[in-house]
Amino acid sequence: MSTGSLDIVAIGDAIVDVIATCDDSFIEERGLPKGGMQLLTAAEADALYAAMGTAREISGGSAANSMAGAAALGLDAGFVGQVADDQLGAIFAHDMLALGVRFETPPLRAPPPTGRCLILVTPDGQRTMNTCPAASHELTPAALDADLIRSASVTFLEGYLWGPERPRAAMLEAARIAHSAGRTVAFTLSESLCIGDRRKGVLGMVEAGLVDILFGNEHEVRHLTGCGSLADCMETLSKNVAAVVITRGAEGALADEAGVCCEVAAATVAQVVDTTGAGDLFAAGFLAARLRGRGTRQCLEAGTAAAAEIISHFGARPEADLRQVVKL
Amino acid sequence: MSTGSLDIVAIGDAIVDVIATCDDSFIEERGLPKGGMQLLTAAEADALYAAMGTAREISGGSAANSMAGAAALGLDAGFVGQVADDQLGAIFAHDMLALGVRFETPPLRAPPPTGRCLILVTPDGQRTMNTCPAASHELTPAALDADLIRSASVTFLEGYLWGPERPRAAMLEAARIAHSAGRTVAFTLSESLCIGDRRKGVLGMVEAGLVDILFGNEHEVRHLTGCGSLADCMETLSKNVAAVVITRGAEGALADEAGVCCEVAAATVAQVVDTTGAGDLFAAGFLAARLRGRGTRQCLEAGTAAAAEIISHFGARPEADLRQVVKL
Repeated sequence: MSTGSLDIVAIGDAIVDVIATCDDSFIEERGLPKGGMQLLTAAEADALYAAMGTAREISGGSAANSMAGAAALGLDAGFVGQVADDQLGAIFAHDMLALGVRFETPPLRAPPPTGRCLILVTPDGQRTMNTCPAASHELTPAALDADLIRSASVTFLEGYLWGPERPRAAMLEAARIAHSAGRTVAFTLSESLCIGDRRKGVLGMVEAGLVDILFGNEHEVRHLTGCGSLADCMETLSKNVAAVVITRGAEGALADEAGVCCEVAAATVAQVVDTTGAGDLFAAGFLAARLRGRGTRQCLEAGTAAAAEIISHFGARPEADLRQVVKL
Repeated sequence: MSTGSLDIVAIGDAIVDVIATCDDSFIEERGLPKGGMQLLTAAEADALYAAMGTAREISGGSAANSMAGAAALGLDAGFVGQVADDQLGAIFAHDMLALGVRFETPPLRAPPPTGRCLILVTPDGQRTMNTCPAASHELTPAALDADLIRSASVTFLEGYLWGPERPRAAMLEAARIAHSAGRTVAFTLSESLCIGDRRKGVLGMVEAGLVDILFGNEHEVRHLTGCGSLADCMETLSKNVAAVVITRGAEGALADEAGVCCEVAAATVAQVVDTTGAGDLFAAGFLAARLRGRGTRQCLEAGTAAAAEIISHFGARPEADLRQVVKL
C-alpha cells in the first residue's frame, strides 16, 4: 500500500478453512446442515475433525475472502479480525499480507486458539461448513482503528460475525464511524443461521439507514424481510438501502439501485469443484467494479465472474489472476 | 487396521507443505534450487515465507506421502516420524490417521515446532522445496516399535531423513530389525542434496546388503554410483540390491530385477500442475503392486499411474480415488 488511505476495509471472521471431500452419507449420518453453516464448540470440532478425511488448509473467513479478492483485483484493502498467536493465526496473517491486504489486528496472546471452519465438500461441489470461531469471536471494538475506517471508501461488514456481542458492537461502531466520514457501508447477510434470532438487529441497522449496499442470497433476504417473492424483498429493502444485491447461485444475480432492477446470468463454469466463497468473491467483484465507477450491470457481471473462478477449485481464495478473469 | 500386522511401515520426515505459486523470477532472484530442495533454518524459513504469496497447507513428507498413497491403494500402512505438539503437528497426524495409516510416534512436548516445507510451484509445474525440518529431525531410535517393524512386510526408508544423525541411526536400526525378521527393506534416495556428503553412508548400507528395493531418479543414482550411464548405474547397484528402480520424470521409469531390465513410459497427464510428490507416489504404486504379487512391469505401471494422479493437482497427497487410477 502506497498511501494511508484504503479503497475498502472489512471487519469479519479470521478463520482458516480445513477442507475435505466426503460422500453425502457422511453429511446425512451426522445431521450436518448441507449447503449451510453451523457453529461448533472446540470439543465438537475436534470430534468432527477426527471423523473427516484428509484435508487441505486454506485461509478463509467470509469478509476476509472478499478482501483477498478485492486486493487481487487491485484495490487497496484492509481487514480487521481476531486471530490468536499460533500457527493457524500466522497462516491467516501471512495470506492476508501476501496479497497486500493491510491486517494489523494484534493476535490474542491467550486462549482460545485461531478459529477453524471444517468444510465438507460433497461430489456436487456443495460445501457444508462447521465453524469453530474461537479467537475470531473475541474481537472487540477496541480493535478498530477509526482513522483507517474513515480513510476507506467502503466499510464492509460480515453477517457471520453479527452473532456474538462484542464483534457486533465493533461492526456497529465501524458503520457509524464510516457514515460520519461520509463513507459507504456494505453488509453481507452471509447465512440464514446468523440472522436467525438476530434478524431484528440486522433489520434495525438497515432501517436506521446504516447500510448502503446489502448483499444476500435468496434465502437470506427472504428470511430477513419475511417476504415471499424476491420482488417484494427488493421493494422492502430498497426503502432503506441504496443498493440491494441478491445472488441466486447458478441462476445468476440481481440488484436494485435507485428503483431500477438489473439481472445477470451466472458465468459459465466447466466444473463446480467447491462452492465455498462464491458469495464472498461475488461481493469482491461487485465492489471492485463499483469502486472503479461501473454501473449496476457491470458490477453484477464482475461479481459473477469472480464467483465463477472461486468455485472451480478448492478453497475460497483466488488461484487464477483475478484481473484476467474480471475485466474492469 | 484390522490386525496388528502391516503391509508396510515407513520412517520419514513428518512435515506440512506450504505451497504457493510463483514466477521463475522469484526463484532466480533468491537463488533457490529450482526443481530441487534446500534446508532452511527457522529464521531463513520465516524470511522466505514472508516473501511468498498466499499458500495452501497440505500434509507432506516424502515417505509419509508414500504411506498416504499406499493406504489409499488399500495397504495396511504405518508411519514413524516426529511432529511437535502444535497445530501443524495435529494436522499432520490427522491426515495420516484419516487414511488409516497407523501413526503413533508421540509428539515432541518442547520446541522446535513441527517441520514445514515451503514449496514454490512455477508455471511449468516444477516444485522448488525449501525445508525447515525442525521437530522432524529430532526423531530418535527410541521412537521405533520393533514389533511393528517385524510385523511389516516392507520397511520403507527415506533419503531426506538420512542426513541428521539420530534419524539415520533410527533408520539403520529399523533396517536391521526388518532383515532379522526376514522382511524387505526399501530405500528411496529422495534428493541429491541429501546424499551429498552422506553418499558413502548410503553406499555402505547398500553394499552391506541392507537394501532390497532401491528407488531413485536419474540424477540420484548417477550421483550415488558415480556412473555416467543408467545401464552402468543399474549394473553397479544390482550387485547388492534385488530391485533397482529408476524414475525419469516425463520419460517414464525402469527397473532391474534378477538381471532383467524393464522400462515403461510415463502415464499421460492432461496438465502438470505441481510435480511435488511424483516420486513418492511412484514408490507407493510400485510397492502396492509388488505387495499384491505383481511382476516388474506391472509394478512400474502402477507407479507411473499413481505419479500421474499426484502431479495433476497441488500437493503430494492423492485427491482422486487412487484405486480407480491404479488398477491392481
